[in-house]
Amino acid sequence: MNSQKYTRQFFKAPDTGHRWADKTYIDHAPVWCSVDLRDGNQALVVPMDMETKLKFFQLLVKIGFKEIEVGFPAASETEYDFLRALIERNMIPDDVTVQVLTQAREHIIRKTFEALKGCKNAIVHVYNSTSKAQRDQVFRKSKEEIKQIAVEGAKLLQNLTDEAGEKYRFEYSPESFTGTEPEYALEVCNAVLDVWKPTPDRKAIINLPSTVQLSVPSVYADQVEYISDNLKYRENVVLSLHPHNDRGTGVADAELGELAGADRIEGTIFGNGERTGNVDIVTLALNMYSQGVDPKLHLDDMPDIVDKYQDYTGMTVNPRTPYGGSLVFAAFSGSHQDAISKGMHYRKEQNTDLWTVPYLPIDPTDISRSYDADVIRINSQSGRGGIGFILEHDFGLRLPKALASAIRDEVKLESEHQHKELTPNEIFDLFIDRFEDVRKPYGISHVTFRQHNGIIATITTQFGNRSAEITASGNGRLNAVSNALKKAYGLEYDLDTYEEHALEKSSSSRAIAYVGVRSRKSGVLYWGAGVDVDIIRASVSALLTAVNNMVNAEDTALSE
Amino acid sequence: MNSQKYTRQFFKAPDTGHRWADKTYIDHAPVWCSVDLRDGNQALVVPMDMETKLKFFQLLVKIGFKEIEVGFPAASETEYDFLRALIERNMIPDDVTVQVLTQAREHIIRKTFEALKGCKNAIVHVYNSTSKAQRDQVFRKSKEEIKQIAVEGAKLLQNLTDEAGEKYRFEYSPESFTGTEPEYALEVCNAVLDVWKPTPDRKAIINLPSTVQLSVPSVYADQVEYISDNLKYRENVVLSLHPHNDRGTGVADAELGELAGADRIEGTIFGNGERTGNVDIVTLALNMYSQGVDPKLHLDDMPDIVDKYQDYTGMTVNPRTPYGGSLVFAAFSGSHQDAISKGMHYRKEQNTDLWTVPYLPIDPTDISRSYDADVIRINSQSGRGGIGFILEHDFGLRLPKALASAIRDEVKLESEHQHKELTPNEIFDLFIDRFEDVRKPYGISHVTFRQHNGIIATITTQFGNRSAEITASGNGRLNAVSNALKKAYGLEYDLDTYEEHALEKSSSSRAIAYVGVRSRKSGVLYWGAGVDVDIIRASVSALLTAVNNMVNAEDTALSE
Repeated sequence: MNSQKYTRQFFKAPDTGHRWADKTYIDHAPVWCSVDLRDGNQALVVPMDMETKLKFFQLLVKIGFKEIEVGFPAASETEYDFLRALIERNMIPDDVTVQVLTQAREHIIRKTFEALKGCKNAIVHVYNSTSKAQRDQVFRKSKEEIKQIAVEGAKLLQNLTDEAGEKYRFEYSPESFTGTEPEYALEVCNAVLDVWKPTPDRKAIINLPSTVQLSVPSVYADQVEYISDNLKYRENVVLSLHPHNDRGTGVADAELGELAGADRIEGTIFGNGERTGNVDIVTLALNMYSQGVDPKLHLDDMPDIVDKYQDYTGMTVNPRTPYGGSLVFAAFSGSHQDAISKGMHYRKEQNTDLWTVPYLPIDPTDISRSYDADVIRINSQSGRGGIGFILEHDFGLRLPKALASAIRDEVKLESEHQHKELTPNEIFDLFIDRFEDVRKPYGISHVTFRQHNGIIATITTQFGNRSAEITASGNGRLNAVSNALKKAYGLEYDLDTYEEHALEKSSSSRAIAYVGVRSRKSGVLYWGAGVDVDIIRASVSALLTAVNNMVNAEDTALSE
Repeated sequence: MNSQKYTRQFFKAPDTGHRWADKTYIDHAPVWCSVDLRDGNQALVVPMDMETKLKFFQLLVKIGFKEIEVGFPAASETEYDFLRALIERNMIPDDVTVQVLTQAREHIIRKTFEALKGCKNAIVHVYNSTSKAQRDQVFRKSKEEIKQIAVEGAKLLQNLTDEAGEKYRFEYSPESFTGTEPEYALEVCNAVLDVWKPTPDRKAIINLPSTVQLSVPSVYADQVEYISDNLKYRENVVLSLHPHNDRGTGVADAELGELAGADRIEGTIFGNGERTGNVDIVTLALNMYSQGVDPKLHLDDMPDIVDKYQDYTGMTVNPRTPYGGSLVFAAFSGSHQDAISKGMHYRKEQNTDLWTVPYLPIDPTDISRSYDADVIRINSQSGRGGIGFILEHDFGLRLPKALASAIRDEVKLESEHQHKELTPNEIFDLFIDRFEDVRKPYGISHVTFRQHNGIIATITTQFGNRSAEITASGNGRLNAVSNALKKAYGLEYDLDTYEEHALEKSSSSRAIAYVGVRSRKSGVLYWGAGVDVDIIRASVSALLTAVNNMVNAEDTALSE
């Protein structure tokens, strides 16, 4: 690689004081214009066919776009037919404006108007390339000649529109704006505006494409601020941006450009478009949303939007694409899971609707993503907090901390061993297998209690083929059963933890009991859980599992 | 969706005048630190196993990373073993420093040092979370208490390092910096630095994570500038950034942050990492490269890097990921293809190495991408320029403009009909089929010439089963053959265009001739091409195909 063959191809704007940088957030939604069906479509390996484009148009309308660029109808039969179908099938709502791209040549404009016949609201978009590179290399024309192309085009469009008796709105783009001297781009735009003389009820759109990104986003913001400050008829101009993403900064270009005075954004959903794509409007909209500003787009059903986008375009939404990607709410690491879990508890505790949960820029459920499937995900890197969250959120278990650590260790081993992520159900099954259902080597088939100086328990207990009836007393029922077990098998442990809670909310519901026993031999804590409609039976079952786990781990069972 | 449940969670930095916005580009490479094996790895659905991590480490070394975070060795056996393997297999070059994450607790630090035994250069990285959200919700501690956690951690690390007789470098991160009041983050960082008292030969790293992006990138740049301006021991501090990408602005955060004073960037290749991922260092490096600044990373063999990345992580590089994605140099649209083609010619014509080709931010061949496979791609939206480029670049054909339009129409129909992109070979085959090999209805099996008042040609020509010998004169050989053909079948056309060029460079090489004939009946131009070592035979073959195309299109063949 030889960096010497490159130079900086952008041109710094005259100083406007970076006033855009004094603003810290975007306080209102811009006018959104989707270019999915034009710029997005032309960059597909296989462009969409007409029926697919019609479905995509409907999706865009449903999302809430009020301006939609539908193609270059004079350049291709397919795009001509598509626009006719939209009009003839009456698919364009009254509050939606379609935008068409055209070159400023008479027969092409006439063909464009023919394609628009019967359309209520339309923007006709003309452009020519103004960058130094294109002037020198592609057109081999002077600045003055290139400006004349724009002016003549603007006049022709104006005249043919008047002749046709139409009231189309106009848009002009100095294409390759980012490689154009800002003073010159301004001169060209103002010359076009002098032709169109926009009015409050027929505003013109001046669109500044970052056709190829050539600078850091702050340089682009300066350029936008300079143009916005110096455009003629400014109050009658909608200043629009069309950022691409060659340097991975399309979103930043749009956001800083909006702070610098832009009123409108052209982009696509999930950033389809030439090369690295256009700016992703989904990201822009939800960035705004996450700061308390209504983006005026309906992105509630994100999984549906993702599915349709993938289906229509044949592209995939990368797992790490902001908001839409499958992994973007996922927390695998223990500390993140713990913080999310605590943040969710805090929100409930404070009884607030305000969303400030750590590691989640927005509430995933706002866009129909779910906590259990999308947020807390369990692999070998995961911690107690996340596993506890899943067992509580999905299965209603509120584990004692030390038991959560114990199941975390089991999950970690299992995930490393199987070399895979574990689903909530697999985690629950693992929990049951290790902590709820350990019936060997000892069993208890029957328990009766009597009250006499404390509690006296009689248990029927099994070991191998043998069964015995043992009686012992204790200061509580669990204690008495535990003493009977110890007596039966000569076990040495202390009852350490006992917790219980209802599993369901009805009065006839099942309860779960958690019992921790500490081995006198090793000092290690062993766990068991038991579920039953009767809390006594649940706790005896938990105790038995805990004791069996101890005996199995320490290999201290009596020989049969 | 209800935007009212959100608020802005960032804190504006005290005004420093946005001095970073006065700078227009990054003029030197930062210190790069790869966190692929830690942050990147923990966010994988299936984290990498040890052998894969070792291979990934080797890739990172090969790319040229001098600082590589390798994990949290005290937190997991796998990460401990991985670090030991790197050290014991002697895989860490002398100029590479490994970085390990640790919590500031005595037994964890001791375990970390145990894992580092025998490692020449290491950075020990401690952190604690400082944001308002985490203080309130997760730790439920005051600012003062949270600062004490950092200070105590810094002291403990310092003491245990001294005790171990090691010279590890230290890094401190106020985790969730973007949700922390900048004045408070500064206070915490300065308190840590007061413990460490960094010196010129043992600088400390202060790392400002955009753990979750909470603002536009200019707000982050202001925060970085404020911290950079006010850090104690500034000349002995390496100011580092660790941008994530929740708002799709990780690259912008890094770039504006560098302009604001940051010296070092933590990120991953292709932006792996928690949720939306870390900043993509490949993009940062090549952005710099595209402006003539050496990024000090070796990204020459991008296809190999992409393959290995995908193989090791199980993730895919999205087709629109800057520089690495499969579509990012692709131009399907006619005007883009034409401009690229002209830009490439201009470069040759000017005999300059300087790269300013429109629509291509860098020369794809610098990173082992190719023009034909990656740049000019042909679908139904493609134009003459692109198709001409492929036929010239891959097959050596320099078509007359009108013939390029004719093959463009054929390609467009074929691509729409087959509903797919066409490969260069398919385009060439289509060209041969339509313009080089049309032998019906008329054939010519033999031609002889005599010179007598111009040229006299005798052709043996076939039509169906009949064969005839016809003689005619003309002012040149092709003209004479054409006249013989006209005479044989009563054809009405004019010879319109004749062009030829050598196909290969040796003297014994083949030539290609292009012939355009204009029908007198319709005025339409029809084309043929012919290839032969003998230029006369090539031109006769071209003429015959052109005439047959006319006759077939206009259905004017004599009945047999």
